[in-house]
Amino acid sequence: MQEQRSITNMADYIDLNGAEQSFGDTDAQREVRQNDRGYVFHSWSAQGAINPLPIAKGEGATFWDYDGNEFLDFSSQLVNLNLGHQHPGLVKAIQEQAGRLATIQPAMANDVRGELAKRIVEHSFEGARSVFFTNGGAEAIEYAVRLARQSSGKRKILSRYRSYHGSTGTAITMTGEPRRWANDVIDGEVVHFFGPFVYRSAFWATTPEEETERALAHLEQQIQLEGASTIAAIVLETVTGTNGVLVPPPGYLPGVRALCDKYGILLICDEVMVGFGRTGEWFAYQAFDVKPDLVTFAKGVNSGYVPLGGVVISEEIHNAFVDRPFPGGLTYSGHPLACAAGVATFDIFEAEGILERVRDLGARVVEPRLREFAEKHKSVGEYRGTGLFWALELVVDRETHEPLVPFNAAGEAAAPFNAVVAACKAAGLWPFAAGNRLQIAPPLVISEEDLVRGLDIIDAALDVADSYYTGS
Amino acid sequence: MQEQRSITNMADYIDLNGAEQSFGDTDAQREVRQNDRGYVFHSWSAQGAINPLPIAKGEGATFWDYDGNEFLDFSSQLVNLNLGHQHPGLVKAIQEQAGRLATIQPAMANDVRGELAKRIVEHSFEGARSVFFTNGGAEAIEYAVRLARQSSGKRKILSRYRSYHGSTGTAITMTGEPRRWANDVIDGEVVHFFGPFVYRSAFWATTPEEETERALAHLEQQIQLEGASTIAAIVLETVTGTNGVLVPPPGYLPGVRALCDKYGILLICDEVMVGFGRTGEWFAYQAFDVKPDLVTFAKGVNSGYVPLGGVVISEEIHNAFVDRPFPGGLTYSGHPLACAAGVATFDIFEAEGILERVRDLGARVVEPRLREFAEKHKSVGEYRGTGLFWALELVVDRETHEPLVPFNAAGEAAAPFNAVVAACKAAGLWPFAAGNRLQIAPPLVISEEDLVRGLDIIDAALDVADSYYTGS
Ligand SMILES: Cc1ncc(COP(=O)(O)O)c(C=O)c1O
Ligand SMILES: Cc1ncc(COP(=O)(O)O)c(C=O)c1O
Repeated sequence: MQEQRSITNMADYIDLNGAEQSFGDTDAQREVRQNDRGYVFHSWSAQGAINPLPIAKGEGATFWDYDGNEFLDFSSQLVNLNLGHQHPGLVKAIQEQAGRLATIQPAMANDVRGELAKRIVEHSFEGARSVFFTNGGAEAIEYAVRLARQSSGKRKILSRYRSYHGSTGTAITMTGEPRRWANDVIDGEVVHFFGPFVYRSAFWATTPEEETERALAHLEQQIQLEGASTIAAIVLETVTGTNGVLVPPPGYLPGVRALCDKYGILLICDEVMVGFGRTGEWFAYQAFDVKPDLVTFAKGVNSGYVPLGGVVISEEIHNAFVDRPFPGGLTYSGHPLACAAGVATFDIFEAEGILERVRDLGARVVEPRLREFAEKHKSVGEYRGTGLFWALELVVDRETHEPLVPFNAAGEAAAPFNAVVAACKAAGLWPFAAGNRLQIAPPLVISEEDLVRGLDIIDAALDVADSYYTGS
Repeated sequence: MQEQRSITNMADYIDLNGAEQSFGDTDAQREVRQNDRGYVFHSWSAQGAINPLPIAKGEGATFWDYDGNEFLDFSSQLVNLNLGHQHPGLVKAIQEQAGRLATIQPAMANDVRGELAKRIVEHSFEGARSVFFTNGGAEAIEYAVRLARQSSGKRKILSRYRSYHGSTGTAITMTGEPRRWANDVIDGEVVHFFGPFVYRSAFWATTPEEETERALAHLEQQIQLEGASTIAAIVLETVTGTNGVLVPPPGYLPGVRALCDKYGILLICDEVMVGFGRTGEWFAYQAFDVKPDLVTFAKGVNSGYVPLGGVVISEEIHNAFVDRPFPGGLTYSGHPLACAAGVATFDIFEAEGILERVRDLGARVVEPRLREFAEKHKSVGEYRGTGLFWALELVVDRETHEPLVPFNAAGEAAAPFNAVVAACKAAGLWPFAAGNRLQIAPPLVISEEDLVRGLDIIDAALDVADSYYTGS
């Protein structure tokens, strides 16, 4: 997930309340801004249209700019900061590993690398055998596809519309949303299909049950027409992230697994955004009665304190490369510093009961409040989610489901949504804004008080959304 | 660079001399090995054929296994450890940044990110404008190609045989050696050409001057026949790394630049392996009177202490994305922890006079010694290199240049070369072994004493190579 709209200078419209909050370091701020605009090329942006906010400090679910403005982070940065800013356990693990052995090449055996691989496998599906480590999510996808193609001897990959899988050659081709468009086809052996999304059904379904049934029938037709003998794998975000927090309806994932088994196709779950607690499970698939063959992860594995990603590999796929070399690799596979932060993540999750927290806060605090929003605010066409991962589908008409702003809107067309986002930011909340949706993905360590405060801010910002409502 | 041959258990054939060296921690060693074989999937390997050496400790140019066996690292891990293991300046920078702000998302402005981008641009070519940060080398290549394609509106990429550019979708297709083979064509718009290599000339040339002239004529023909109007960029490793430490002969790189200008093609220098001091320059192209449009880097930028790579972007290409968004990005672009280690790298290079050291040690210690090897050892068909980056081309016949082992040899066919490598390792030297070549790429901080000691070990190992010599 990457925010595409231009970020204006917060200091211009945010009330400074409390001089004691100010970091008062105007020279430092000016230098940060100058160096950024002078030398840093930014992702997904028109370089002339952005004015990135210099950040001075972060702690838990909060970060501050150089003027002392405080933001409650409902986006966990790019949905990676599961344990919040500057978690003492993660900081300590990194500092200790840096002092012990910052790096060693992948061909050696390393204690923290092995320890993290073990913990991940032990928390994975039955029959999980090993972990291949990468530096991030896109690379995880690249190698999951490589493993599927090389072990199956087939090349075609089926992925879904309304998905994001990263931005390297194959990953961007697999992506099923506008970020792919400008990149043409890089990997020619990727085909897209539609997944379930009751609120905007591609199958004229009106209930989750109907949606599941039709989505599976659609997928089976597409498998037949593409040719099962040509398809190496089906890839899906277990719970779709940036493209809408789409929780699979009951029966869908087991149904996909059954199709994979019927047609001899591998199933890859992309858990880069939802793995490691976001949905209240170690891995999101664990709530859906489905066993994948390969699972990609990144972000939450160490909250992004050190770049890390990877692929969990089934025994069967692992075994395809016992006698034959796997044709792929990278200099920093299983980087000790990154792995040390991953091992600490497991310790912290257990010590702080993170999964239980997520389930409790999601069910007890977030869900009822969003239900209330849907009753109170006309602009909330639907709310959906699980754990600490939710979306509010903002519309101008509840009958037609017409979104608050058109699909992939920019500039003037995006103004109504931008106004909602600006209202959040002005009140000190950094939302996870995507399309016509306010999404909610705070650090999993957020206090209940902060969670409620953030929801209060969204409540108020929804008045702005309501003001654009045109339906009855 | 990734070592492909299987690594046997060092402890089996290495003499333990000095019980005081032993780390004596057999349980720890056993656990590391068990977890590695139990759970870690390794790059470029048949998982059943490897037995990775557990490493307990590293310092400067040396690392130790759990039995206290000491290895002098003539490979700088995967040619990334330019400042050696556990450099106090790098460790401190990481520990401080971890305590201050371990991470922040790419859309914000961050002090160390901006500072590092500034330093890199200031040490780059005239007209360099900005830096796009990635997590490693393959991603750097992916984004350099993206920048070239998107700014030029053309798609085709010309890259060289005998090159390695990484292992993600586009990067592996660009790679011009066996690691590409098993991956088929992922990105269909990449074409390979031959570069200069006097010792194994593809152009029947016998002198560097002739090689340059013919290599350029070859390239021009290929540009004409592929169609200049279809070619976005030519990509080359400024000094080819794993595929042979191929230093471009005089006039070659300026000649490629001239062809690029003549035909409206961009020039990308891949400096992932040679950037940041390896050749005695900040960037290797700086010794060859050539101005690239895009430069990829990784490894040496922070010695791989934290995964980091990136692309230096010319003003012209940067400006193509001032009003129009660049379609690409990644969660950890410009990661603060990685960038802090990059800033420290510049400080250390300056404080310790690293570039001067590299030039001095290369010219005064390494070159004369390799010249001596070439005189003394029949198996040394050629030595070549620059700075602290050298290769010994091992042959069985100096007349025919027949290599010590066949191209891409494995198993029995590779035995003679493996024997040379084993002799190095048994004597405590970890060489950079590639094909039929012993390559030399120690940390740039290696002491003169250790450098000489390592060369002594190679001297002795070359006796093993000589024993296979069949020529006259
Ligand atoms: C589901 C999913 N897959 C892959 C990626 C790509 O990860 P990265 O940005 O680390 O390359 C993302 C990033 O947001 C993601 O959300
Ligand atoms: C010249 C060159 N380019 C690209 C790469 C790929 O870098 P990484 O392994 O970090 O993806 C390498 C790795 O050895 C390299 O030597």
